[in-house]
Amino acid sequence: MTAAETRDARLAELAELAELVEGRDWPGLRARLARLPVQDVAALMPDLTREQRVPLFRLLPRRRSAEVFSYLGPEQQDELIADLTNEETRRLLGHLPPDDRTALLQELPAEVTRRLLGLLSPAALRQARELLGYPPESVGRLMTPDYIAVQPQWTVARALKAIRAGARRGEPANVIYVVDAQGRLLGAVDLRRFILASPHTAVRRLVGGSPVQLSAFEDREAAVRAIQHYDLAAVPVVDSEGVLLGIVTVDDVMDVAEAEATEDFHKMGTVGALKGGVREASPWLLYRSRVSWLVLLVFANLLTGLGIAYYEATIEAVIALVFFMPLIVASGGNAGAQASTLMVRAIATGEARPQDLAHLLAKETAVSAALGVTMGLAIWGVGAIQGGTEIGIAVALSMVCVVVVGSLFGMVLPFLLHRLRLDPAAASAPLVTSIADILGVLIYLAIATAILDLPPA
Amino acid sequence: MTAAETRDARLAELAELAELVEGRDWPGLRARLARLPVQDVAALMPDLTREQRVPLFRLLPRRRSAEVFSYLGPEQQDELIADLTNEETRRLLGHLPPDDRTALLQELPAEVTRRLLGLLSPAALRQARELLGYPPESVGRLMTPDYIAVQPQWTVARALKAIRAGARRGEPANVIYVVDAQGRLLGAVDLRRFILASPHTAVRRLVGGSPVQLSAFEDREAAVRAIQHYDLAAVPVVDSEGVLLGIVTVDDVMDVAEAEATEDFHKMGTVGALKGGVREASPWLLYRSRVSWLVLLVFANLLTGLGIAYYEATIEAVIALVFFMPLIVASGGNAGAQASTLMVRAIATGEARPQDLAHLLAKETAVSAALGVTMGLAIWGVGAIQGGTEIGIAVALSMVCVVVVGSLFGMVLPFLLHRLRLDPAAASAPLVTSIADILGVLIYLAIATAILDLPPA
Repeated sequence: MTAAETRDARLAELAELAELVEGRDWPGLRARLARLPVQDVAALMPDLTREQRVPLFRLLPRRRSAEVFSYLGPEQQDELIADLTNEETRRLLGHLPPDDRTALLQELPAEVTRRLLGLLSPAALRQARELLGYPPESVGRLMTPDYIAVQPQWTVARALKAIRAGARRGEPANVIYVVDAQGRLLGAVDLRRFILASPHTAVRRLVGGSPVQLSAFEDREAAVRAIQHYDLAAVPVVDSEGVLLGIVTVDDVMDVAEAEATEDFHKMGTVGALKGGVREASPWLLYRSRVSWLVLLVFANLLTGLGIAYYEATIEAVIALVFFMPLIVASGGNAGAQASTLMVRAIATGEARPQDLAHLLAKETAVSAALGVTMGLAIWGVGAIQGGTEIGIAVALSMVCVVVVGSLFGMVLPFLLHRLRLDPAAASAPLVTSIADILGVLIYLAIATAILDLPPA
Repeated sequence: MTAAETRDARLAELAELAELVEGRDWPGLRARLARLPVQDVAALMPDLTREQRVPLFRLLPRRRSAEVFSYLGPEQQDELIADLTNEETRRLLGHLPPDDRTALLQELPAEVTRRLLGLLSPAALRQARELLGYPPESVGRLMTPDYIAVQPQWTVARALKAIRAGARRGEPANVIYVVDAQGRLLGAVDLRRFILASPHTAVRRLVGGSPVQLSAFEDREAAVRAIQHYDLAAVPVVDSEGVLLGIVTVDDVMDVAEAEATEDFHKMGTVGALKGGVREASPWLLYRSRVSWLVLLVFANLLTGLGIAYYEATIEAVIALVFFMPLIVASGGNAGAQASTLMVRAIATGEARPQDLAHLLAKETAVSAALGVTMGLAIWGVGAIQGGTEIGIAVALSMVCVVVVGSLFGMVLPFLLHRLRLDPAAASAPLVTSIADILGVLIYLAIATAILDLPPA
């Protein structure tokens, strides 16, 4: 079954499930659900009504229902928790892995979180408080303390016994960590190395050093980078003494990478944080995520108007100049948006580093000058026809200057923000465009005033 | 060692390595390299000169040098291949995994690819031709035919023997595939299930159905979605008969996910494909990736100028209208860029589906009207002061209309492109901004003409 067929099958599945729920055919529904992967059950939930969702969820076996719950979006989880009894919620929380429990508790409103913390077992409560004690978007918020650790003096046979016990408890077992008696991380061993080794070998002889270990306080981006760079199945997290605290697995990291890319993508379009996605977001949340930048840019654009007002005499003398204004001004903004797009992404993926700035600036100057000349030539004919040769020269020359200035500004701004420890993605296309607009108007009208020999402002 | 410390250590490492290369201290260099993970060796290469790089690469043991090579960018690979002898290249190619070989061959210029194909063993050549026969950016280009398959009637003990042999050959062993005598995929088993099972159990009893299988001809995005949705370590690829052809692993998919996010990110800023990244890209490549959209937008913006020319009488009568033009026009573009940013990303991550359009449109109308009113109020005072009450009304009213129209256009365009099987990311911020500009000028000047009771155009 290809991915496209999977999608079509899902729609059919949904209709069937809804029908079974509507007809209250519980045995039929249970049989149907048992054949579906938990991720698919979770993916179907948003398309069911709240009344259909709860009985369906209750029909799932306990461990499976916890897995389905882990794959739901925060809004869905919130709704479902509100519809479950305290006893059901307690059981659900007991079956959630610790990292999913942290994810749930940090997303919910404070009063719900308090209620849920009250339902946890003392051990789970201690663990949850510890994990929630790490900063938001930190490695600690992603990690699970469920991992399999063995000691270096153990034989492979004894280690395999520990691995079996761990795998039965549902702990991820593709990477086994080796720790000393004090719990300090010594290294990591792939599960397959245990299978290849003779049962009497000491674990010590299999250990390869772990290429990287993280602190729980680092930004979660560090976990993404480490797993991606070293192609790991999981990355270990240690405290300042080197004691193993937990691990972050590749599947969590893929979700984080997607969330971070979405966040940067939105920032480039001056849209703020939208947890849970645009489809589920309320109009009020969407409004809040967009309004501040738009109003800020209104005032930036008023400056452009002031620039025009300053050159009122020039414009009144040669009204034809107004026709070309949107063109010149937008071109600088567009070239600037391109340059900032390239830099914001290159900084985010770690491709562009501060020491590359000089080299990149030199290259950008050459590239943007060539772009400006191309665009100037493209409108040269049109400019000459509409308002005479002098206007043509003014327009073409302005084009080159505006494109170079806009591009260099768009390139430097993300680096500057990065240097100031601000988010480079705040150098959004609309911000760069707005500032390039102001510069563009001033450059254009100054050049036109000079070339057309008009009285200065 | 935290990620930040790792970075600092890398810089020190680089200086040390460069010194060892300069001093031709080959034994010292070899010892130093042996302690570094292959990914770090690869990451250091771009910072070395070409003269330093080749001897360093030659010092690496064969299998390790092939691994380092796999992690290099296409430009680096190209340069290195040019500096190696035919014999060295032949050995290098022999040690590369098939999927990395495909990746290399598809990136290189045609004549280099031909030369390399001539150096392959007959079996490797057949395999390379087969993999390169799949469309660019397809699942087939990502997959490796190196996987471990066992038969359902085998005992666990016999299967473990096959797994050990495979793992020794370096084939990925975290997921084992079960195929029938004709090679048709029956299902997948996690390696840890083999460890838990008794040696005499038949493999048949361990098989869980694989939740998804892909065709080699599908877009590589399908592999990203499948691995991400089902949290898999690898996804199997089958032909139309269901015969297992190969697998795509999670580490390849993470790189693809990053590359696709970068591609969409760049497209939103009207930047074309840039293989190998902005730091390595030549000025000529950067120019080509940016010029076509910029020139196209020049002509779109000329239309805005024509809109202004059409209302020349209005502008000459009330020159104050010009001051507010950049503001109104940019605001519609900014709101439209926000809306298209949200939609392009939501379509790319599979969050927004065609059937959601009506619901999203209704929400966007409400949100954009609220945004327009907020922005209208924000400039109301300024408008009234600068040009009288009537201009204030014209400006504020235009603001609301322009923001709503720009937002709805920015929202619908990505859906429209998606429906037409074009890339939604082509609804870039600059394109939406340019079109919103044209609409904005026409709406603003029409409203102003009506309210100020000026002669029509």
